Amino acid sequence: MQDLSEQQVTEYLNLLKSEIDSRLDEYTQFGPDCPKTLSEPIRYSLLSRGKRIRPTMTLLACELSGGVRSKAMPAACAAEMIHTYSMIHDDLPAMDNDDLRRGQLTCHIQFDEASAILAGDALLAYAFEILARKLFPSGLAGECVAILAEASGPLQLVGGQADDMSWNAGGGTSLEFLESIHHRKTGMLILAGLRMGARIGGASETQKKMLEEYGNNYGLAFQITDDLLDWVGDEEMTGKRVHKDKSQGKLTFPTYLGLDESKKQAKERVEAACAALANFKTPHQLALQALVRLTRNLLERKK
Amino acid sequence: MQDLSEQQVTEYLNLLKSEIDSRLDEYTQFGPDCPKTLSEPIRYSLLSRGKRIRPTMTLLACELSGGVRSKAMPAACAAEMIHTYSMIHDDLPAMDNDDLRRGQLTCHIQFDEASAILAGDALLAYAFEILARKLFPSGLAGECVAILAEASGPLQLVGGQADDMSWNAGGGTSLEFLESIHHRKTGMLILAGLRMGARIGGASETQKKMLEEYGNNYGLAFQITDDLLDWVGDEEMTGKRVHKDKSQGKLTFPTYLGLDESKKQAKERVEAACAALANFKTPHQLALQALVRLTRNLLERKK
Repeated sequence: MQDLSEQQVTEYLNLLKSEIDSRLDEYTQFGPDCPKTLSEPIRYSLLSRGKRIRPTMTLLACELSGGVRSKAMPAACAAEMIHTYSMIHDDLPAMDNDDLRRGQLTCHIQFDEASAILAGDALLAYAFEILARKLFPSGLAGECVAILAEASGPLQLVGGQADDMSWNAGGGTSLEFLESIHHRKTGMLILAGLRMGARIGGASETQKKMLEEYGNNYGLAFQITDDLLDWVGDEEMTGKRVHKDKSQGKLTFPTYLGLDESKKQAKERVEAACAALANFKTPHQLALQALVRLTRNLLERKK
Repeated sequence: MQDLSEQQVTEYLNLLKSEIDSRLDEYTQFGPDCPKTLSEPIRYSLLSRGKRIRPTMTLLACELSGGVRSKAMPAACAAEMIHTYSMIHDDLPAMDNDDLRRGQLTCHIQFDEASAILAGDALLAYAFEILARKLFPSGLAGECVAILAEASGPLQLVGGQADDMSWNAGGGTSLEFLESIHHRKTGMLILAGLRMGARIGGASETQKKMLEEYGNNYGLAFQITDDLLDWVGDEEMTGKRVHKDKSQGKLTFPTYLGLDESKKQAKERVEAACAALANFKTPHQLALQALVRLTRNLLERKK
């Protein structure tokens, strides 16, 4: 792997994030035909200070596979819309009842419950409209819709949340079940972002396989470090309530494994994710190093 | 138009409905990977006694255009899933707060609010998965996703509901605005069903134009008669609460126009819808007569 400077990687990642932010802004300039009572909560939640992990993964997977990232931008934004919708709905009083997210009041607190439900619904439908209208040719759009819809559907994202809800009310308690919930709630959407990027970039079967292996490990590392943040994180840095899962006795990786073992497992998953990319052949070394950077950063997550 | 017997038309419409019901059942056999806490509310709401107007329109439009209706079945079911999701969410306490729908308790009463929110979310995502995975070739799937997602998105279905919500809280009061809300909330999804069916059936430009004209008139007639049912309908027949809009002082067609003028306008719209089909050239006379029947039936709606 050609060694590019740390600075180059940082600038590249910042550039990707700013491109994603601009495009999300552009896609949600709905104009006068959209009620303000709807466009405001949508934009409030979508354009808040997100890390843009999923869309960044989509763009990186596209470039790694030899594609031009602008082509993957609709898919990247669609993945972020799905992520934002799921947070808006998960935060609702009937669900996790959270009041802080991304450093600001949650959507239903800033506006009201009806607005938050509708903003989430609109983002969910709009993600597929963006894919179908902005990705060409339409066959490629159809394939990306299949990938993203599956990750968002009853067997994955929504199913994971449903199990998370009933589990809190006294369901199963195995580590396997915990991992399964997180895989469906979080891992699959990250994977979907990578899959769409790989598909749009024209990845080879070998490249696809490596990205799958990478994504599975990244997803789990992401969730373990997310749980760790709830234990040891800072509210101002994370932009959301901490110690909440802990105080509610919710089963998390640290509850189950203890702090030290959780940190160890996160580290192992990060190494496994990076190892999956070790022999990745790509014309875009910068994208490869950026993906490795994002992965190693998980171990120093502050938000 | 060749005159087929009333009986033939009735049998044909019943056959379509039973085919739709079976396929909806089949598509939601999620198996053990879907939590029961999710699959049960989904199936409870989706498989209840719906009129299946939207999916029937999709199948009819396909056959009218010369296609085989089995090809349009995924699109038909996707339209019904979107319709069902929107009813589940509209019935929530933070929205219209209804307790009766399709002759049974609403989803959040039968289960709980979280389950109803998640069942709606899952149906919304799943509709697009069905389109993307079951319609071939994938380019056709992409086009149908564009049609259905647009009808379900912030400018249409969700936007209409947002305006309906804020209007109840004291927004605008013109007849034009009332029609615009209903067009977005109801008309566009009916149109989307017709459009997908026409696209899948390979409709000519002339056929598409006639179906658009038809759908616009049908949609409005449907909504006026829906409002009339709230005034003069029977709870047992409609399967939902009646006199609710009226008692809440919600602006409806009868409030605005009076009962007689509303009935007159519904009749005019039905005539206009049928007139749009008068010169429709189709190899499938039965489908054409069935569509006319469905339209005329609006004037005798009991549910």
